[in-house]
Amino acid sequence: METTFPQPLAMVDTTLFTILHERLCLILARRKEPPEQGELALPGGFVHVQEDVDTEDAARRVIRAKLGFDAPYLEQLYTFSGKDRDTRGWSISVAYYALIPASLLDHSQVAETLPVEDLPKLPFDHDQIVAKAIERLRSKATYSSLPAFLLPEIFTLNDLHGIYQQTQGTRLDKASFRHKIMEQDIIEPIPGQFRTGAHRPAQLYRLTHRALTPFERKI
Amino acid sequence: METTFPQPLAMVDTTLFTILHERLCLILARRKEPPEQGELALPGGFVHVQEDVDTEDAARRVIRAKLGFDAPYLEQLYTFSGKDRDTRGWSISVAYYALIPASLLDHSQVAETLPVEDLPKLPFDHDQIVAKAIERLRSKATYSSLPAFLLPEIFTLNDLHGIYQQTQGTRLDKASFRHKIMEQDIIEPIPGQFRTGAHRPAQLYRLTHRALTPFERKI
Repeated sequence: METTFPQPLAMVDTTLFTILHERLCLILARRKEPPEQGELALPGGFVHVQEDVDTEDAARRVIRAKLGFDAPYLEQLYTFSGKDRDTRGWSISVAYYALIPASLLDHSQVAETLPVEDLPKLPFDHDQIVAKAIERLRSKATYSSLPAFLLPEIFTLNDLHGIYQQTQGTRLDKASFRHKIMEQDIIEPIPGQFRTGAHRPAQLYRLTHRALTPFERKI
Repeated sequence: METTFPQPLAMVDTTLFTILHERLCLILARRKEPPEQGELALPGGFVHVQEDVDTEDAARRVIRAKLGFDAPYLEQLYTFSGKDRDTRGWSISVAYYALIPASLLDHSQVAETLPVEDLPKLPFDHDQIVAKAIERLRSKATYSSLPAFLLPEIFTLNDLHGIYQQTQGTRLDKASFRHKIMEQDIIEPIPGQFRTGAHRPAQLYRLTHRALTPFERKI
């Protein structure tokens, strides 16, 4: 490298959300090394220029190492930087986020999952990163097929309505939710398939081809 | 700094747009040093940990140094990274963008302003950064007061319609534009003030208080 002046520390942080017991939860890991050893924090780590292709690749490596699973996709959230955000020195952290099915956590020994309403005070600027991620998640969830990825392949409109309510953190009127979601062209009824039970049979749906890009911008 | 392993190079790049002769233009600067010396490129530079508070501060310093003016505001666009994007080594570039009034360029000796449709091939991954910035600008412009910041304080609906057409790069139906913009609550008529001329008097408007956060998200 040609520069002789000092470079900032370069790291990644990940904000992974899931829905557990019908609540939007954040996935944290306990820090094994100083600073803030033993504290719950966002899974993160330094960029390794020898092995990482780019910062997204670094984030995937960190998730594998710290949580024990492969993230199905990641979206870049925002980059946090400055001289005071980490005691080890001037640093840049490229933050990523994703909304993942809870089943991915089955094989993780270390992931700790907490409802977003019950988070402890987090170290570094992680509170700020989480606030930004929740804001982004909620604005994305309105217009995209993203929350639908938490469902099994086949689901009812009722299931979907519940998932959107949880990711958005607000009650959604059922009739207008139904209208909006059909307008988006992200789900389609499966001809002749219904869920039967105590109530009247409920039409089963699946994601359309169009929906299969989870973060597709609709605006 | 406690790490002993090599850190990536950390830099910022800026994509500044303006409207000149009714066309959306990008502001470029000719590179004074290698690599790519003499080429037109996005104004950018290394983070200076000794003097910059954060990467946005670094971007403001770079704009001042390379273009000779103070950016009124900057929005973070996206962070580009990897081992191959810069020949000097594994690098992270935090990119910023803004839409600025052409009058800011009056005191710049070095800024070169080119219509976005007529850009040359740019060095590094700058083509990719510009593509992302145009995409973001156009998605933001639909819903925000951003383009209105290119106008003088007092303007007609016709002026505003022209500016939105240029930032969006598409023709907008006048009646539905008028309807949408009034719905956003970002402009208001100035009671009793009209522009007179060859045509019938045109109502003059100004930005509302609400509009004065240029990047406010409406979703």
